[in-house]
Amino acid sequence: MTRHSSIGPIGVFDSGVGGLTVLRALRSVSPAENFIYLGDTARLPYGTKSAASVARYSLQCADALIQRGVRLLVVACNTASAAALDALRLHHPSMPVIGVIEPGARAAVAASVSQHIAVIATEGTTAGGAYQMAIQRLNPCARVTSLACSLFVSLAEEGWTEGPIAELVARRYLEPIFAQAGAPDTLVLGCTHFPALAAAIRAVLPRQVAIVDSAATTAAAVLEELGGAAGAAGVSGKVRWLATDGAARFARVGSAFLGETLRAESVESIDL
Amino acid sequence: MTRHSSIGPIGVFDSGVGGLTVLRALRSVSPAENFIYLGDTARLPYGTKSAASVARYSLQCADALIQRGVRLLVVACNTASAAALDALRLHHPSMPVIGVIEPGARAAVAASVSQHIAVIATEGTTAGGAYQMAIQRLNPCARVTSLACSLFVSLAEEGWTEGPIAELVARRYLEPIFAQAGAPDTLVLGCTHFPALAAAIRAVLPRQVAIVDSAATTAAAVLEELGGAAGAAGVSGKVRWLATDGAARFARVGSAFLGETLRAESVESIDL
Repeated sequence: MTRHSSIGPIGVFDSGVGGLTVLRALRSVSPAENFIYLGDTARLPYGTKSAASVARYSLQCADALIQRGVRLLVVACNTASAAALDALRLHHPSMPVIGVIEPGARAAVAASVSQHIAVIATEGTTAGGAYQMAIQRLNPCARVTSLACSLFVSLAEEGWTEGPIAELVARRYLEPIFAQAGAPDTLVLGCTHFPALAAAIRAVLPRQVAIVDSAATTAAAVLEELGGAAGAAGVSGKVRWLATDGAARFARVGSAFLGETLRAESVESIDL
Repeated sequence: MTRHSSIGPIGVFDSGVGGLTVLRALRSVSPAENFIYLGDTARLPYGTKSAASVARYSLQCADALIQRGVRLLVVACNTASAAALDALRLHHPSMPVIGVIEPGARAAVAASVSQHIAVIATEGTTAGGAYQMAIQRLNPCARVTSLACSLFVSLAEEGWTEGPIAELVARRYLEPIFAQAGAPDTLVLGCTHFPALAAAIRAVLPRQVAIVDSAATTAAAVLEELGGAAGAAGVSGKVRWLATDGAARFARVGSAFLGETLRAESVESIDL
C-alpha cells in the first residue's frame, strides 16, 4: 500500500485550461486516481495579474478543492506556483502542495550540460523570477535567461499550434536568445499552455537544446509524493470538473489541451 | 453654453488598456474636458468571460466612477457595451451612458454600399451578436458576418502591430471572409484593441473595403451628447487614472494605446 492510499481525490487547479496539460500527464502516470480539476476561468489569465492578486485567488481555489475533500493539491499553473506556493503551504500545513516550478527547475538542472538555462513563461512568472530562484537554489552557479512569451498563450488557446504563424512567433521570441555564442542548452516551457506549441518551438531551436516540459515533470513529482503508486491495474479514475465561468468555452478550448473531448454539461460552475 | 457645461469629469472604463484608444479619440475631439479612466485590469480580459460576469463587473466600474463624480459614462469596451449597457442605463437612469457598439453600427451602416458588413471582435462580443442586432435595428435588410479575432488582442498588447506576423494573422482571419464573391464592403473593428493593428488589417483587405473604427465613432457620439462642445480653446483637460491591478503594466502597455507616455506613479490602484 502507498502512503496516501486512496482516500480522497487529487485536487488540481489553474487559471483556466492550461493546467489540463498537467492533468493529462497526471492521468497518464496515475490512471486509477480520482481528480478534481478547477479552472478559475472567471479571473483568467493569472499571467498578467499582480502576485498579491494571484496569491489571493489561489488560496480561494485551494479552499474550494479542500472543501470537496482532496488529499493533495497540485498547482497546475506557473504563475500561481510562483506567487502562492508559500502561502498555500502556510495555510494548509498538513496538505501536500505541489507546484509546477520546482519539478521543472529540477529537470532543467539535470538536463543542462552548460548550466545556462532558458525559461519562457508568462509575464507574471518571469517578472517574479521564480524559476531563476528555484534553479539557483539547486545550482547557485547556473545562469538563467528568462523571457515572457505572452503570444504563445493566445496561439495555444486559438488552436494555431502549428504552421507558419506559430513558427514565426517562436522564431521572433527565441532566435535572439539561441542565435548567439554561449546560448542556453536547455529550454524550460514555464507555462502550462506551451507544451501545445512544442513542435513549433522545436522547429526553431538548435538541435542540441533540450526542452523541459513542466507538465511531465510535475506529474513525476506527484507520483513520487504518492509513493510511486500507479493505482490498481485496469481501474480508471474519475475527474470532476469545476470552472468559475464559461463552462462551454472551458470545455471547447480545454479539449485540445486535455487530448480528449470534454463536454460542457459535465463542467460544474462555482463561485469563489 | 452646452447642455452639461463643465460640471464633473467624463468617466471612461474598460477591462484594461484597449479603451485608451477611445479616450485618445475623446481627448482629440474634446481636449478641454476632464476625464477619469478606469481599467479593470484585475479582471481582464472581459472578452472571454460570460455576459453575466461582465455585466456585474461593469456595474462595479460604473459605481466607482459615479462615486468620483463623473457626469457621463463611456463604456470603452465592446464586450462590456454588449453585455452591460442595458443594465447600466437601468441602474443609472439619470446618467448618460454611451457604449462603443451603437456608434460603430451607425457608422458601418452609413459607410456600406452593399449593406453586407463584417464585424471582427473578441469572442464575447461576437458570441452575443450585439453588433448584428445593432446594425439590423438600423437596417433590417443588412447582412452581418462576424468573426472572433482573439489573437489581435495579444498582438496589440505585445506591441507587434506591424510586420509579417501581424499581416499573416490578419490574412488568416480575414481572407476567408473577403476572398469570395459577395464579400462585405465594410469592416467594423469591434474591439478597442484593434485600431492598433489597422495598418496590418488594411494591408490584407481589398482596397474598396471601408474600415470603421469604434474609437473615433464613439468620440463623435460623446461630442454629440455634450451638445458639440469642444471646450475652451487652449485649455487642456486633466485625466485621473485608476486601475484595479498592476499599475506598472497598465502604464507600460497603455502608453502605446494612448499615444503618449503614461507613468505608473500617476495610476491609482483601487479595489472593486
